[in-house]
Amino acid sequence: MSRPVFIVSDHTGLTAENIARALLTHFPAQPLRYLRRPFTTDMAAAQSVVREAETLAARGERPLIFTTTIHPDVLNTLRTAPAQVFDLLTENLRILEQEFAEAPRLEAGGHHDMQDNEAYLSRMEALDFALATDDGVGDRQYGLSDVILVGVSRAGKTPTSLFLALQHGIRASNYPLAEDDFERDGLPAPLQAHRDKLFGLTIDPRRLHAIRTQRKPGSKYASIEQCEYEVRRTNTLFARLGIPSKDTTSASVEEIAAGVLALLRQSGRLEG
Amino acid sequence: MSRPVFIVSDHTGLTAENIARALLTHFPAQPLRYLRRPFTTDMAAAQSVVREAETLAARGERPLIFTTTIHPDVLNTLRTAPAQVFDLLTENLRILEQEFAEAPRLEAGGHHDMQDNEAYLSRMEALDFALATDDGVGDRQYGLSDVILVGVSRAGKTPTSLFLALQHGIRASNYPLAEDDFERDGLPAPLQAHRDKLFGLTIDPRRLHAIRTQRKPGSKYASIEQCEYEVRRTNTLFARLGIPSKDTTSASVEEIAAGVLALLRQSGRLEG
Repeated sequence: MSRPVFIVSDHTGLTAENIARALLTHFPAQPLRYLRRPFTTDMAAAQSVVREAETLAARGERPLIFTTTIHPDVLNTLRTAPAQVFDLLTENLRILEQEFAEAPRLEAGGHHDMQDNEAYLSRMEALDFALATDDGVGDRQYGLSDVILVGVSRAGKTPTSLFLALQHGIRASNYPLAEDDFERDGLPAPLQAHRDKLFGLTIDPRRLHAIRTQRKPGSKYASIEQCEYEVRRTNTLFARLGIPSKDTTSASVEEIAAGVLALLRQSGRLEG
Repeated sequence: MSRPVFIVSDHTGLTAENIARALLTHFPAQPLRYLRRPFTTDMAAAQSVVREAETLAARGERPLIFTTTIHPDVLNTLRTAPAQVFDLLTENLRILEQEFAEAPRLEAGGHHDMQDNEAYLSRMEALDFALATDDGVGDRQYGLSDVILVGVSRAGKTPTSLFLALQHGIRASNYPLAEDDFERDGLPAPLQAHRDKLFGLTIDPRRLHAIRTQRKPGSKYASIEQCEYEVRRTNTLFARLGIPSKDTTSASVEEIAAGVLALLRQSGRLEG
C-alpha cells in the first residue's frame, strides 16, 4: 500500500511537485505515488480531486495534497478532503501583503506562463543558440555567448548548455577539447579572444571511460589510457591558464549550472 | 530603490526561487532584485547572508529571504537578519513527521542531487535520445520513444522534447510534417506502427509566419500562404485521425509538456 500524493495546481504543477519532492525525500522509507492534477482552476475540478481523495481515504490510503493554488474557492474545497493539505502559497502571500502594504494581484499561474514573455523568449532564443552551436563553432558565435563550456567529449557540456538555456536563458556554447589542442598546449586559438567567458568541465577518468564505453565499446576513444591522458591534459590546461572549472563526475546539470551562474554573477555579467 | 530578495538554499536554490517567483508575481508593481546564495550549508555562510542583509536594511532596503534550508543552525542564523524570512520547508516537514509518525532523515538537498541517481540517469539518457533523434528518425527510434511529437517545422517540437527529457526523463522523438506528407494525405508511413504515441503540435499560422520570417526572411518557407497551407493540412490530419494535439501559439514549453504528460498518464504509460 502506498500513500497517494496529490499535486494540485492551477497551472502545470511543477513548483508544487518540486516542493513536495523536496519534503518527501526526507522520508525515504515511505512508499508514495504521485497523482498530478494540473490546471485545476475551478471548484468543479477541485471537487473531483476531493471525491478521489474520499475514495482513497475510505480504503485506508489517506492522501497528502500539495497545492500552489491561490483561488479561495479551490483551496476551501480541497480543505474539505479527508487528507493532509499543504497550502504552499497563500500563507506566504498574506505575509507579503503586509510587508509590501499592497494587495496581491490574484491572477493565476503567472510564474510559468507567457505573461513573463520577454524572459520566456530569451530562454527559447538561448535554446536555439545552444542547439545551433553545439560542439564547436566560429568566432561570431563565441562572441555572442554568455559562457563557453570547455571540456573533453562526454564531460557534460551539452546537457549543461541546454539546461542553462531552458532554465535560465543563458547563451552557452561549447568548445570540445581534442587531440590537436593537447598536442599544441596553450589555449586553443578560437578561444583566445574570449578568455573571460570560459568555464571548464572536468571529470574523473574512470567515469569518463565508463560513459564512453557505453557509446563506443572497445574503441581507443573509450580506453582508460586515452581518458586518463585527456583528463590530465585538460586539468593542466585549466590550472595553468586559471580557467574556473567544475568536476562533473558526481554533479547534476543543476549543480554544474549553479557553478556557471555563480561565475557569471561574480564577474557582473548576470544580476543577483 | 528595489527590494533585495535573497534565495538561500543548501543546494542550487531552484525550488526556493520558483516559489519566490510564484509569490512575487502577484506584486507586479514592486521593484525587486534577486540575490542568489546557493550552497549555503553552514553557519558561516548563513552569517555572511545576515551581514549583507544588515547592510541593505541599514540603507532602507529591508530584504526578503526565501529559504529551503532544513539545517536548524542555518535557519536560526537567517532568522536573526533584519529581514522577512520565508521558511519554505521546515514547518511542512513537521506536519509530515506527524502524518507519517516517523522522524525525517535530515540530509540536505536530496531532491536535486545525485542521490536519486536512477531518475537522474534516465533524464540524461532521455536527453541523449532527444538530441540523437531530433527531426526525423527511423522505426527503431520511434519504437523506443515514449511519445512522438508531430508538427510542422518551428511549431515547438524540439524545445518540448528537450524539456520533457531534462525535466521528466521522457523519451520524446519528433516527426516533422512536410510537403510530401500533405500531398499524400493520411498518416505518414513511418508513424503508422506508432499511432498511440503521437502527440500533435499546432500553431497559429500568423505566429508561424513571424517565427519563420526571423529565420528565413522572404522565403517561400516563411510566407503566410505556405504557413496557412501547412497549418490547415496539419489540423485536418490531426482531426481526421484523432491525434491528440495542443496549440502552441501562446503556450510555454512547460504547458506543452504538461499536455504530453497528461496524455501519457491517461494511457497508463506514466505513473500518476
